[in-house]
Amino acid sequence: MVTLADQRARFPALQTKHYFNYGGQGPLPQPALEAITNAFAWSQVLGPFSGQALEWIAKQEASNRRALAAELGVAPQTLTLTESTTTGCNIVLWGLPWQPGDHILIGDGEHPGVVAAVQQTAGRLGLQVNICPLTLAPDPLAVIDAHLTPQTRLLVISHVLWHTGQVLPLADILRLCHGRPQPVWVLVDAAQSVGVLPLDLTALGVDFYALTGHKWWCGPDGLGALYTRPDLMDVLEPTYVGWRGVEAGNPRRDGRRYEVATSAFALSQGLRVALEVHTQWGTPTERYQRQIQMSTLLWEKLSALPDVTCLLPGRPAAGLVAFRKRGVTPGQLVQTLEDQGFCLRTIPQSDCVRASVHYLTSELEVESLTSAIQAT
Amino acid sequence: MVTLADQRARFPALQTKHYFNYGGQGPLPQPALEAITNAFAWSQVLGPFSGQALEWIAKQEASNRRALAAELGVAPQTLTLTESTTTGCNIVLWGLPWQPGDHILIGDGEHPGVVAAVQQTAGRLGLQVNICPLTLAPDPLAVIDAHLTPQTRLLVISHVLWHTGQVLPLADILRLCHGRPQPVWVLVDAAQSVGVLPLDLTALGVDFYALTGHKWWCGPDGLGALYTRPDLMDVLEPTYVGWRGVEAGNPRRDGRRYEVATSAFALSQGLRVALEVHTQWGTPTERYQRQIQMSTLLWEKLSALPDVTCLLPGRPAAGLVAFRKRGVTPGQLVQTLEDQGFCLRTIPQSDCVRASVHYLTSELEVESLTSAIQAT
Repeated sequence: MVTLADQRARFPALQTKHYFNYGGQGPLPQPALEAITNAFAWSQVLGPFSGQALEWIAKQEASNRRALAAELGVAPQTLTLTESTTTGCNIVLWGLPWQPGDHILIGDGEHPGVVAAVQQTAGRLGLQVNICPLTLAPDPLAVIDAHLTPQTRLLVISHVLWHTGQVLPLADILRLCHGRPQPVWVLVDAAQSVGVLPLDLTALGVDFYALTGHKWWCGPDGLGALYTRPDLMDVLEPTYVGWRGVEAGNPRRDGRRYEVATSAFALSQGLRVALEVHTQWGTPTERYQRQIQMSTLLWEKLSALPDVTCLLPGRPAAGLVAFRKRGVTPGQLVQTLEDQGFCLRTIPQSDCVRASVHYLTSELEVESLTSAIQAT
Repeated sequence: MVTLADQRARFPALQTKHYFNYGGQGPLPQPALEAITNAFAWSQVLGPFSGQALEWIAKQEASNRRALAAELGVAPQTLTLTESTTTGCNIVLWGLPWQPGDHILIGDGEHPGVVAAVQQTAGRLGLQVNICPLTLAPDPLAVIDAHLTPQTRLLVISHVLWHTGQVLPLADILRLCHGRPQPVWVLVDAAQSVGVLPLDLTALGVDFYALTGHKWWCGPDGLGALYTRPDLMDVLEPTYVGWRGVEAGNPRRDGRRYEVATSAFALSQGLRVALEVHTQWGTPTERYQRQIQMSTLLWEKLSALPDVTCLLPGRPAAGLVAFRKRGVTPGQLVQTLEDQGFCLRTIPQSDCVRASVHYLTSELEVESLTSAIQAT
């Protein structure tokens, strides 16, 4: 097993600053960057367009898809490669067999990009969007239950809320939605849960899980995936299609049916190597345990400061710690911290500053950040 | 001005083989690969997610969009960055204000990926697809004219047909379509024309022009663009949307309105540098003139071989030379040639072999290829 110090040494971004923006974009490990460069270079040796090159790429792609699938506890056939979490959400929103007047239920703290996608789909297809107040709700299950209508066909929620760091009880929510007289599908924005929570999506029974590789997994930007439960592949129609999604003129029978055409192959080499790097430090459960140990440490230290309020009333169960400091705006605080080498971000939606804590985060970084916030 | 030999020396893929697959994927120049690697590396120095990094990326992106726009003769605001040509086509197909029963007219030789997108959209939205025989048609304008119906709202054609290398008379076709009692929009698959024909899309007045950077422009795979004529931005609704396409909850007023969310920023650095590399050798017109000189040379040499038939009845006006050889299947011929270091491809749709000829192609390569085909 690699020590934490050795593991951190593989991430150039961590060498010159204190990094607390994993939830925005993860730092790319050097071996992943080398894999990207090598993929471009090797495809020039083989082709780039030749029988040899296409064969090599097909083999690598299959192996990359298996690596992603293994992290999620799913069969590779259930995955669609996408550019981003939001693209995955769009595939679901545009592919479901809607009837005009159907309802979509969405949480009040969802990411603006996903909210825009829901509103655009609803506006174009004549659907009604209902919003339920999940932000810091003590009993999110009861809130969702109270907001489902007989017309609700889809619930759109994050597994981990990006603006507060709450972890929603997804298994219970799925049980509630699937147990309705007319079952409700659940589309999960997994941007803040993938690479954080140990996942077994098959056991969970989630309908649609849209994710990206470039945040907590520390892959390159521009590569994500959508998990579709196998029995829903017949329900979810392809919308944007191209040569990658069809075979002899018909949609493929696996997740590739929602893929379009050429994408940057090298990115998937980079993501696979990033996953390998994490695995060399520990299992998903080991990574998660260290991560919440660190996010709890930050939450406790910040909660002890007289002028700081953490949004979460109890210890975090994921990597996000959102907070406010009396007498300084979130924008001022983030700027002052960045000037001192600490990368954090504001969340306008909850008027706060957000720190992302990874298993890669060190105790020293948590302590330095706390001192810097105190001193601001 | 760089000599052709010096220019070729900047493309690693050209050093070890005779490359005739630019229409499949262009070779990546070494400076473009370095730009991609540097973009990833520099974003690790600045962030990757920080105020500094976001500012740097925004500035670079604007500059990259201007470089693309300059090559096409358009304003940067008219461009939407996409993953591929086909994605651009899907944006148009799903965004037009269709009425059930509207007709789409498509050529008989369009790329299977685009055909799949047209069929999927038509099937889902209740549109009728009509097909017109443009393959090797002596008068394509008359063919299109004869196949337009009062219900035709959209014509989908390639500027350069991928399976034969014909260049369609796009200005005349636009005049015909725009002059109809109910004007017909024209969506152009520009996969085989961008980086080949000198283009001034503003003067041409084309409605929608969907392109990729990874073929004749020799950029990285996974980055393309869609040009939308400015007055059509209000007509073409966004379909897949996300944070990149909206501003304060509403669609942006420029081409970014059809963009979704995170993509691989480094790719656009690579494409801009690839364009700079070409510019160092010559203007678009100079590149085009050398290119058709070379494609004409190949066409003439192949036409002179007794067992070889070129599909085009006259000299090529673009980079593609499609042909058949008596007594050998396209698949066998391509395999035999690849074994000798020549990269070509088959086109199942027209049961032929296709050679792509670039301005980078040397006379020696054309001669060697001709001899190798003769000897097979």
